[in-house]
Amino acid sequence: MEAEGRLAVPVIAVNEARAERAFNDRFGAGQSVLDGILRATNLLLAGQTVVVLGYGWTGRGVALRAHGLGASVIVCEVDPLRALEARMEGFAVMPALDAAERGDVFITVTGVRDVLRGEHFVRMKNGAVLANAGHFDVEISLPELRAAATGGVREILPLVQRYDLGDRALNLLAGGRVVNLAAAEGHPAAVMDVSFALQALAAEALARGSWTPGVHPVPDAIEREVAGLKLAALGVEIDALTPEQVTYLSSWS
Amino acid sequence: MEAEGRLAVPVIAVNEARAERAFNDRFGAGQSVLDGILRATNLLLAGQTVVVLGYGWTGRGVALRAHGLGASVIVCEVDPLRALEARMEGFAVMPALDAAERGDVFITVTGVRDVLRGEHFVRMKNGAVLANAGHFDVEISLPELRAAATGGVREILPLVQRYDLGDRALNLLAGGRVVNLAAAEGHPAAVMDVSFALQALAAEALARGSWTPGVHPVPDAIEREVAGLKLAALGVEIDALTPEQVTYLSSWS
Amino acid sequence: MEAEGRLAVPVIAVNEARAERAFNDRFGAGQSVLDGILRATNLLLAGQTVVVLGYGWTGRGVALRAHGLGASVIVCEVDPLRALEARMEGFAVMPALDAAERGDVFITVTGVRDVLRGEHFVRMKNGAVLANAGHFDVEISLPELRAAATGGVREILPLVQRYDLGDRALNLLAGGRVVNLAAAEGHPAAVMDVSFALQALAAEALARGSWTPGVHPVPDAIEREVAGLKLAALGVEIDALTPEQVTYLSSWS
Amino acid sequence: MEAEGRLAVPVIAVNEARAERAFNDRFGAGQSVLDGILRATNLLLAGQTVVVLGYGWTGRGVALRAHGLGASVIVCEVDPLRALEARMEGFAVMPALDAAERGDVFITVTGVRDVLRGEHFVRMKNGAVLANAGHFDVEISLPELRAAATGGVREILPLVQRYDLGDRALNLLAGGRVVNLAAAEGHPAAVMDVSFALQALAAEALARGSWTPGVHPVPDAIEREVAGLKLAALGVEIDALTPEQVTYLSSWS
Repeated sequence: MEAEGRLAVPVIAVNEARAERAFNDRFGAGQSVLDGILRATNLLLAGQTVVVLGYGWTGRGVALRAHGLGASVIVCEVDPLRALEARMEGFAVMPALDAAERGDVFITVTGVRDVLRGEHFVRMKNGAVLANAGHFDVEISLPELRAAATGGVREILPLVQRYDLGDRALNLLAGGRVVNLAAAEGHPAAVMDVSFALQALAAEALARGSWTPGVHPVPDAIEREVAGLKLAALGVEIDALTPEQVTYLSSWS
Repeated sequence: MEAEGRLAVPVIAVNEARAERAFNDRFGAGQSVLDGILRATNLLLAGQTVVVLGYGWTGRGVALRAHGLGASVIVCEVDPLRALEARMEGFAVMPALDAAERGDVFITVTGVRDVLRGEHFVRMKNGAVLANAGHFDVEISLPELRAAATGGVREILPLVQRYDLGDRALNLLAGGRVVNLAAAEGHPAAVMDVSFALQALAAEALARGSWTPGVHPVPDAIEREVAGLKLAALGVEIDALTPEQVTYLSSWS
Repeated sequence: MEAEGRLAVPVIAVNEARAERAFNDRFGAGQSVLDGILRATNLLLAGQTVVVLGYGWTGRGVALRAHGLGASVIVCEVDPLRALEARMEGFAVMPALDAAERGDVFITVTGVRDVLRGEHFVRMKNGAVLANAGHFDVEISLPELRAAATGGVREILPLVQRYDLGDRALNLLAGGRVVNLAAAEGHPAAVMDVSFALQALAAEALARGSWTPGVHPVPDAIEREVAGLKLAALGVEIDALTPEQVTYLSSWS
Repeated sequence: MEAEGRLAVPVIAVNEARAERAFNDRFGAGQSVLDGILRATNLLLAGQTVVVLGYGWTGRGVALRAHGLGASVIVCEVDPLRALEARMEGFAVMPALDAAERGDVFITVTGVRDVLRGEHFVRMKNGAVLANAGHFDVEISLPELRAAATGGVREILPLVQRYDLGDRALNLLAGGRVVNLAAAEGHPAAVMDVSFALQALAAEALARGSWTPGVHPVPDAIEREVAGLKLAALGVEIDALTPEQVTYLSSWS
């Protein structure tokens, strides 16, 4: 809307705050997406290949936790810089068509639609698990999955639907809806406290300040205040710069 | 019983098999214990300090997965060799009295009784979580916990009891019973298949062979057969030695 | 200089590019700093406690690799948001005075002076190793280290000086100069290619374009071009968005 | 020799001691093999694919450290149980012929001869690095490598020989000799102290005791004594069992 000149009010992009991305997207979603998959399936992740489609902040968290639970992780990305970061962090990176043949569990976290579609389904292994942790229920193409399921669809566990493709079957979790909300309890309280604090302080800043219409980043002072409060809640103390160090840092001569 | 000369029959120690320890104890319990704690509490493990008491095979799995979910892990052990291994693997190692002051989550996996008791409870942080994944419900001393709870006990979530010690409160999961059985679904099927295969083949070997009374290890051929079958189920192929390599290996000259 | 209004020319901040930070600072320095310490000391890092002072991009790389080599890692930071990220990533976080008593190896990567000074030296363990991977040779206070060394200074290995504090001795690497340059071979070629490509393309963009005086970020197209070239060099292929996905992404309705 | 009835004296298998395997093989060789490769090549391991051939204790250490330095790791094994463990620990497992096409760095740690041979060399990528950390210089077949190098052999760095296969070139480290001894400094002192302590105490036990000819394991009391001494040297304290716990452990009723 801003790009089209149609945003008439000031907005603070709380979802883009560093603290928000670290907590909510990376650590919160990272844990709760895997938690949702385990609750729905009771799969053993060690020894499995998990394909993470999308390496934004949520994708990073999901890849980190899938690896932390013993899975071998493949990342699929369309952005070359993110793809390179994934590779440098030790993950296999490849096109989704290649990953389709190797994965045991597929997790979409891209923010776009039809990330997994007919051409992928027909290459997957029998018994592959499909979960979405991105946008609504559009990242896994349900129309194409239904069309491929010539043998019908059957609910085999409360949140697991088995799509019978004839020569193989695929297991869709939570009907393709966001798996950490549908199959687990969403973000832990220790994540939401940071989100709510950022939202409350940003709303206060908007109300008290004078802002131009458009999208503004969260002021750095708010990020630091929330981070400082969270550290205190965790019982973690840190150092402060000495006056001599402050002088050194601000000098370029 | 064997040590006392009272074991009158042959026994194959399936629980001691390498495949059993790797699958059932390390990877199966490792995942399911953390799964149980997440289901009961929805805690965010990243940023938390998890204390693992006992570094046998199950303890190793629990420490590995707690670390994989982002926790900082402390290990307590009475065996110097295990303690040294834990330290070499990058974990902090210390006596339980010191760990008591630092932990956010405590998990007992020792096989002995009263691992956490009155002297530990009074040093713990307010809100600390206590879970057992070892023997029955005796690893966390329930009598001493009840005695310390001068402010009473209250169920705050289905499997979480809050013990009020006056100046602090501790949260006991599943009444101190084995948390992966009580709060999650126990081992995944991909773990139990290995256990059942070992048990079935060991029983067959006992029935067909001629064995002296006493405890026998699982025959190596059975371990290798089960491992080979599991690899095939995972779709993993491996090499075989060439005849020249077999000759090289069996020679000492 | 820009803040003081004294920057008369356009500058592209290549050092702040995402690709530069990921490669040069995080992965390049992360590996080479540890490499320098191993070459100078042949220490076994497993079982050791490594204290990383500063959690910018280089500090993240150093902490990641120290952990990857088996060390238990403590992070010291003055920025609350960075400190919180370190804690969420599973590291212990504490003030430098507390870390001083626990560390076996100390690595400064802050960009400020006198990070380790007299008050820290007197708390360190006998045999502690001091290395700098930050600014010049000012992060470890050499004047205060010399003043504390009442028992003299002795070179015990080519790049290791032993400072005798009377009741303990500390080992300074490379005279406090940047340890990956002084004791190892600096960044691998696979890091510098990315840096040089960014610099060359940024210089070309400056020469061809029309820029206002001041500090500008690396244009996104250059970052993506360099990342794409590097992926190709690594033999990694990635997907592209479909036209339908591009439309979905650019719509807000 | 024992199997052939030709071992006329008692021998204690110090190399098989748990402490020896953990320290010398896993953590000592794990670190020093990678250290040797970095010193010889200054490669950036992040983003590379490292193939570890052999998953005994040394292979485990090498795989662990290669992963810890950011590489994507493939394991090749002939033993199904070890192969399964590697897979469960999150590594890709495949036959050496398949791994040959994917690896950037190959490390042999098997204890057998001709692990990498002509059929592998012709499938490797241009620029692949070959290192041995196993038996002598026989694990990489030098005769077959020389035969394949129709374009000649050239030393391009002090310990790096470039074999020109016509359409590709392979880089052999240290002439195929053990890379951590040839290109680094072998095991750190903090590894050898454990080895020497085990050897000294085992020799004393042999001299003082009365032993039958044959191979004996290191007595458990010696393992525990060495581990306890090492913990003390690291400044790590641990708990002891209470008398009630000892009673509980020794009872089966």
